[in-house]
Amino acid sequence: MAGTDRSRSGEVAAGEAPAIILVNPQLGENIGATARAMLNCGLLELRLVKPRDGWPNPTAEAMASGAIEVLEGAKLYDTIQEAIGDLDFVLATTARSRDQVKDAYTPKGAVAKLRWHIAAGGRAGILFGPERAGLLNDDVALADAIVHVPLNPAFASLNLAQAVLILGYEWFQSGDETPDETLVGTVIPASHEEREFFFTRLERELEEAGFLFPPHLVPTIRRNLRNMFTRARLTDQDVRTLHGVVTALVKKQGKRSSKD
Amino acid sequence: MAGTDRSRSGEVAAGEAPAIILVNPQLGENIGATARAMLNCGLLELRLVKPRDGWPNPTAEAMASGAIEVLEGAKLYDTIQEAIGDLDFVLATTARSRDQVKDAYTPKGAVAKLRWHIAAGGRAGILFGPERAGLLNDDVALADAIVHVPLNPAFASLNLAQAVLILGYEWFQSGDETPDETLVGTVIPASHEEREFFFTRLERELEEAGFLFPPHLVPTIRRNLRNMFTRARLTDQDVRTLHGVVTALVKKQGKRSSKD
Repeated sequence: MAGTDRSRSGEVAAGEAPAIILVNPQLGENIGATARAMLNCGLLELRLVKPRDGWPNPTAEAMASGAIEVLEGAKLYDTIQEAIGDLDFVLATTARSRDQVKDAYTPKGAVAKLRWHIAAGGRAGILFGPERAGLLNDDVALADAIVHVPLNPAFASLNLAQAVLILGYEWFQSGDETPDETLVGTVIPASHEEREFFFTRLERELEEAGFLFPPHLVPTIRRNLRNMFTRARLTDQDVRTLHGVVTALVKKQGKRSSKD
Repeated sequence: MAGTDRSRSGEVAAGEAPAIILVNPQLGENIGATARAMLNCGLLELRLVKPRDGWPNPTAEAMASGAIEVLEGAKLYDTIQEAIGDLDFVLATTARSRDQVKDAYTPKGAVAKLRWHIAAGGRAGILFGPERAGLLNDDVALADAIVHVPLNPAFASLNLAQAVLILGYEWFQSGDETPDETLVGTVIPASHEEREFFFTRLERELEEAGFLFPPHLVPTIRRNLRNMFTRARLTDQDVRTLHGVVTALVKKQGKRSSKD
């Protein structure tokens, strides 16, 4: 996209991803860990509303593990209203269900909504409250909707940076096309012909070795062997390795027999 | 499930959820943060292979934020082989693509596979390597498959507890039925009759106030007003509040007019 302000990480331009807004964060460690989690997920825009220990904060830098571009680009605000003034769609993260009538999303539902708003040309953000108490009811009322992470109800309190990570993770996944299941490595699948050649040889060797017995079970044994190797989805190299294994075992057997 | 060993948190019995196996973890802080993330996600079974600083570790307890039951139940092993000996399906988390031919899953694909194995009566676990280097190639070879978290390729290194959280989060979500989008709060939706009564009153007041003008735009103005309030999905209480608002504004106008 020519003309937009691309970041160093090359992932997103400003406005193409939601801003992360930390309201009165207490610990520099958590701001640093938040920056790291954000950059992990391609989120670059950090906004801070009155961090308790001032800004910049060296403790944050120590915990950012290199996500310095996020910290250096952080913007400081005195109020939530100022921090969200230019945004069209703002989500408030909250652990508790509130006595307010509001749209509520899971993280997955939330990022779908965020993408919808951003695709329509809007700018979006996610509010996170201070470590102990979370967002106040009046803070939540400023937001367009609530996002709540379903977790173990007996132990649902998430660390601040962990909460940012979960939203960031869902954001990244919603734009990622990695298949949920794949086969990695240098894979040249063995052709049916190669596999058939190996099976035939294996069965011949086993027959000569007296393994295919008793006769009425032989068809089952053959099928089981074939299925076992088929489930392994053998590669080209695997079939060569298996030929070597059979050759070595046959040779060993020959050696042992000659010693007997 | 009578007869199974339920934990204090009441969430899962042993074997019903995957074990989290930390291989040579270096920092007690990360073991503690892992325990917290696990309990957040209803995972209780922690296995430690040769933690660098020995076990138990007071630093881990300080970072667990109350997830002490996970730390106290942690089992210690000398080798990965011993730690996974009783498991049927083991995933290895790895940031890098490996020169090994192996099934690879996203976290979402991984938990689907974990649930499949557990539902079939198997026991499962997830291996996480040490903080700096991650799992060795030979460690990965012990696992049945790989799980890889798609993240910003320019900054993909996750903190150990963050990696555990993402797998745990996906695990919990895959068993959770919270709808992705809902309306929270004490909601008694306003009936169409109540809404119609309010719209009619509002339009009458606006007509008397001279707002419905010019005549050829009146149908559009009426539709816009109705759509605006319809999108708000008014509750019973909202409609009463709006009646009060209209009454107050009309009264104020009356007061002002009488002063003029």
